[in-house]
Amino acid sequence: MHRNILVEQIRKKKTYLCVGLDTDISKIPPHLKNSSNAIFEFNKAIIDATKDYCVSYKINTAFYEAMGAKGWDAMAQTVQYIPGTHFKIADAKRGDIGNTSSQYAKAFFETLQFDAVTIAPYMGEDSVRPFLEYENKWGIVLGLTSNKGANDFEMLSLQNSQERLYEKVLTEVSKWGNVNNLMFVTGATQASELENIRKIIPDHFLLVPGVGFQGGSLQEVSRYGLNGDCGLLVNASRAIIYAGKDEHFTTEATAIAKQYQAEMASYLK
Amino acid sequence: MHRNILVEQIRKKKTYLCVGLDTDISKIPPHLKNSSNAIFEFNKAIIDATKDYCVSYKINTAFYEAMGAKGWDAMAQTVQYIPGTHFKIADAKRGDIGNTSSQYAKAFFETLQFDAVTIAPYMGEDSVRPFLEYENKWGIVLGLTSNKGANDFEMLSLQNSQERLYEKVLTEVSKWGNVNNLMFVTGATQASELENIRKIIPDHFLLVPGVGFQGGSLQEVSRYGLNGDCGLLVNASRAIIYAGKDEHFTTEATAIAKQYQAEMASYLK
Repeated sequence: MHRNILVEQIRKKKTYLCVGLDTDISKIPPHLKNSSNAIFEFNKAIIDATKDYCVSYKINTAFYEAMGAKGWDAMAQTVQYIPGTHFKIADAKRGDIGNTSSQYAKAFFETLQFDAVTIAPYMGEDSVRPFLEYENKWGIVLGLTSNKGANDFEMLSLQNSQERLYEKVLTEVSKWGNVNNLMFVTGATQASELENIRKIIPDHFLLVPGVGFQGGSLQEVSRYGLNGDCGLLVNASRAIIYAGKDEHFTTEATAIAKQYQAEMASYLK
Repeated sequence: MHRNILVEQIRKKKTYLCVGLDTDISKIPPHLKNSSNAIFEFNKAIIDATKDYCVSYKINTAFYEAMGAKGWDAMAQTVQYIPGTHFKIADAKRGDIGNTSSQYAKAFFETLQFDAVTIAPYMGEDSVRPFLEYENKWGIVLGLTSNKGANDFEMLSLQNSQERLYEKVLTEVSKWGNVNNLMFVTGATQASELENIRKIIPDHFLLVPGVGFQGGSLQEVSRYGLNGDCGLLVNASRAIIYAGKDEHFTTEATAIAKQYQAEMASYLK
């Protein structure tokens, strides 16, 4: 998806919500569990219930891999079912030497037809580049993540520079691509860092997880993260998809997604 | 697999070779390409041809994912076919927030029954821990990798410590597990660093890629990396599995694997 189309969708629908499909068979409503294709049935219902209030879906590959080839099939069906108007993210945190990263890019951009893949930057430039070589496809590189472990390495200060590791990642990686093929993951639980992040990368889109279940504040994220093109995709997963526990789960998913959309609309003014 | 069994196999067979199954449909011999299950047929032949000369197989998940659910099936069949005497590594470079890493651990340790998974450390402790909670299973965390991009972040010096990032990763991560559930990836193309690495983690097993096609020296790696329990798994992928290009490819794979084994036997004395 071209950046212009994403920005147009955000403006038209007044939302920058990304719905995370971290679908766990043990957490879906009981009446769906016996379906032969329960994961896809659940995702289909969630997509129908939320698509008017979001511009993106993020599939957390771990939950599908845990089910083996069957899970991989459910992932493929889900990507196909997501409307073409929505930005499709494989939250896969991949990254390896060049010839291997090329295979991952092929897996997610060609075989599965996602628009974007999340990437772990530890292995450096040649591990990231293969994801940036596809037209209208995106690499979304981990900057500052939303978990406690972000303090272990990402926040460490580097010698001979005024930067912490995650800042160096933003500075360096942003040279390898541009605002049309590169985004960064910056966790909502570190909203106070967003002001700083926007100084380093004012124009890139940020994928922001950690709102909702992990405790990040949408208001704070929007205050520090929004730029002239919106520049944010804020993800909520569990808070939306598991809002309901029974056969009315889609009603509750819609309600929560709509709530997020309404709040986002107010910040987009 | 328990560490004692791995060490016993190494001593008995006088080899610490790991054969990397980076199986690419475009590179396998023409006579196999038309098989309905070409990837598995190729792997099966390579395993039969090399199992006497190695103690481990490493499956590079990217190559299987590039083929979608069919590839995931071929990976499952391959893991099942590898003899129980051999240490089975998923080279997957995973790592995510805790509840997601748990799903990856489930995917590779329960659904697919690998012995070990490679892990990217960028996201810190809670992204690594779920892989260390299984008895006789292993997390293999990226330390210093074999690619050029290792210089971008892994080699950066940290402030307030005498360490570079990859050294800090070795120091910190080694506190989260022990020598029975944790190994590190240290690339053969950086053999001179192995002397230093052995000062930080003298007792851990190291998974060493980069020998063969990437240009690392087995002699150097062995000189600096071997410890009292061997402590090395040296991987070769392309140099072995694509040694032959036609229907005699297994003869050539055997010859190369046997060459590595003979050299390793000389270093183990």
